[in-house]
Amino acid sequence: MPLPSTAALAQRHARIRESLETLGLEALIVNAPANIRYLSNHVGTAGTLVLTRDDAHLLVDFRYQEAVKALQDSASACPGLSIWDVPASYEEALVGCLTEIAVASAGFEAAHVTVSRYEWWRETIGGRKLDITLRPTERLIEQARIVKDAFEIAVLRNAAARLDQVLPAALAISRAGATERSIAAAIEAAMREAGYERPAFDTIVASGPHSAMPHYRAGTRALSAGDLLVLDFGGVLDGYCSDLTRTVSIGAPSREARRVYDAVRDAQAAAITAVKPGIQASAVDAAARQLLRDRGLGDAFGHGTGHGLGLDIHEEPRVGAPRADVPDLTLVPGMVFTIEPGAYLPGMGGVRIEDDVLVTESGCELLTTLPRDLLTL
Amino acid sequence: MPLPSTAALAQRHARIRESLETLGLEALIVNAPANIRYLSNHVGTAGTLVLTRDDAHLLVDFRYQEAVKALQDSASACPGLSIWDVPASYEEALVGCLTEIAVASAGFEAAHVTVSRYEWWRETIGGRKLDITLRPTERLIEQARIVKDAFEIAVLRNAAARLDQVLPAALAISRAGATERSIAAAIEAAMREAGYERPAFDTIVASGPHSAMPHYRAGTRALSAGDLLVLDFGGVLDGYCSDLTRTVSIGAPSREARRVYDAVRDAQAAAITAVKPGIQASAVDAAARQLLRDRGLGDAFGHGTGHGLGLDIHEEPRVGAPRADVPDLTLVPGMVFTIEPGAYLPGMGGVRIEDDVLVTESGCELLTTLPRDLLTL
Repeated sequence: MPLPSTAALAQRHARIRESLETLGLEALIVNAPANIRYLSNHVGTAGTLVLTRDDAHLLVDFRYQEAVKALQDSASACPGLSIWDVPASYEEALVGCLTEIAVASAGFEAAHVTVSRYEWWRETIGGRKLDITLRPTERLIEQARIVKDAFEIAVLRNAAARLDQVLPAALAISRAGATERSIAAAIEAAMREAGYERPAFDTIVASGPHSAMPHYRAGTRALSAGDLLVLDFGGVLDGYCSDLTRTVSIGAPSREARRVYDAVRDAQAAAITAVKPGIQASAVDAAARQLLRDRGLGDAFGHGTGHGLGLDIHEEPRVGAPRADVPDLTLVPGMVFTIEPGAYLPGMGGVRIEDDVLVTESGCELLTTLPRDLLTL
Repeated sequence: MPLPSTAALAQRHARIRESLETLGLEALIVNAPANIRYLSNHVGTAGTLVLTRDDAHLLVDFRYQEAVKALQDSASACPGLSIWDVPASYEEALVGCLTEIAVASAGFEAAHVTVSRYEWWRETIGGRKLDITLRPTERLIEQARIVKDAFEIAVLRNAAARLDQVLPAALAISRAGATERSIAAAIEAAMREAGYERPAFDTIVASGPHSAMPHYRAGTRALSAGDLLVLDFGGVLDGYCSDLTRTVSIGAPSREARRVYDAVRDAQAAAITAVKPGIQASAVDAAARQLLRDRGLGDAFGHGTGHGLGLDIHEEPRVGAPRADVPDLTLVPGMVFTIEPGAYLPGMGGVRIEDDVLVTESGCELLTTLPRDLLTL
């Protein structure tokens, strides 16, 4: 698997260390697996990373010792890394590490540490009279991850492009009589075939009445003539997520289905056209939303227009109407997100069209380029 | 999808309410999706449940409103449930609900609530001068879930039994030249075919040297004669997980491979024989571990013997050597867990054999019943 170089990791560390300096912290305890991977290239479901002002400490159990040692002998070695063995509890190992490297203050990821874990840390540190202050931090690494570096952009382009090989496999068997689940299986087999490690999320195959439910997955219903069929899928390639939705018609679409389809397609086009550096993410949402409102479909579009893509399938920027509790980011080159407006009309059905875009200096680059016109199968 | 009846949910509520009474709490805020499902039959990736002494409140956004209303019109309705709409933030909606139903004290799931979320609750409740005390709780619902009820046992039996249809699909294509990934794809296609909603975890197909890495997944390596091949997979059926591992030999096994295989098979048999109500879970682990030690393979078995199965793929009881930070439970009828000893010898390869068992009054019932002798393909 391609991994970012040691130099790329060093740049990421430098950015996080700036934040530590600003906050007056000597170290950051990293618990979120995607964040650990981002800073260390350690790919695993377990591990704790401690990034200090000068070096890095990765705590892993026996399962990952060999893999991490091999990584450190490669061109993608994590700079300044010490490997710590975790014989039993990760929490014990962490307190042991903090004590031994003698940091007096460490930030932790408040959004990824449960109250249980934090209480254990506090009680253990207090009980042993250790001189370590723990402080919650928010989004230090997530914020860095929003703007992708050159390595990530190359991988995300590749991850998105390969979906071109997957959609035809789904369309080939999407006809009256086929079940949603069999189409989902064909999509997932084609994703494996295309080289994806795994689906990025549960594949959605929503036919007929189910197409009106934005978060339906795939069931035993058989397609029937006149159905709208929403196919929403994506794969993880080299750790990075892709995400695509197309809606097709099984047999000739009704006049109303075509009207709704055209509105969603135009809303998506309006949103794509809106993307450029310097505007708010919410302006992209507003472009799609206004068009659907103008076509009388404002109430039929109940979700946000898009979400960031990267090591996680849902990350920043959020592309939606402004909300008090989530930042509305200003777009800058290097951001990657989905644009996926939809319209859902119980009784009639639903339409969603989704593509992945990269913000560039002048606008955006479409990472997924499959045709967007209504296909009749 | 079959769901437990209203009466079954009422029993679960009663058990949690006993805990609330003991703890002097008026309500429990439930955030873990599996726990929400366990108590309400709401199947979704979002939602917050508030269980009070007398009723229940489910907070869901527009995506789930229709599904929850349909549920409440069925024989699997959640008893005493009010449905609350979440127009924007779940946290805002929760504080609004707690205020409106006027509970003075609520427990929350400390193992499922992040420090960020807790701090937001605290600051908001404090800032608005609301009379609500929040208190961390541990394992209230998880503890109830350890012993499966009649509905769950029926589903888990079914989930495990269908793996019988999946293994042959994998074996049919496991020969020299086939890649690990193509076998993983065949397994996942067969799981779909057998009716599973999704894989319960990333399918493991580990051949030759990879078989010595217990947590390897599936890569591009082609099988070659003399390989040991570890196949570890499971599916989710009606929400419940199954998990099976078989190790086979591609071509004639070496004498050493056979010796290791026989030791692991005997260790598994010893562990299965040990299972009965009244013993500690660690005694099951000890039975397997002692046998491997006697055969000189003690150091080659680096993980625990098993884990509970249910709505989550890893739940209690943990079946491993005693550890300070995890409870070592006494087995009682109705517990369901895996028994999966292994031996991993870098250079030679690895063997793991895994089955799912249900603790009965007199011992255990094997939920997976495929042959355990070494197959040569």
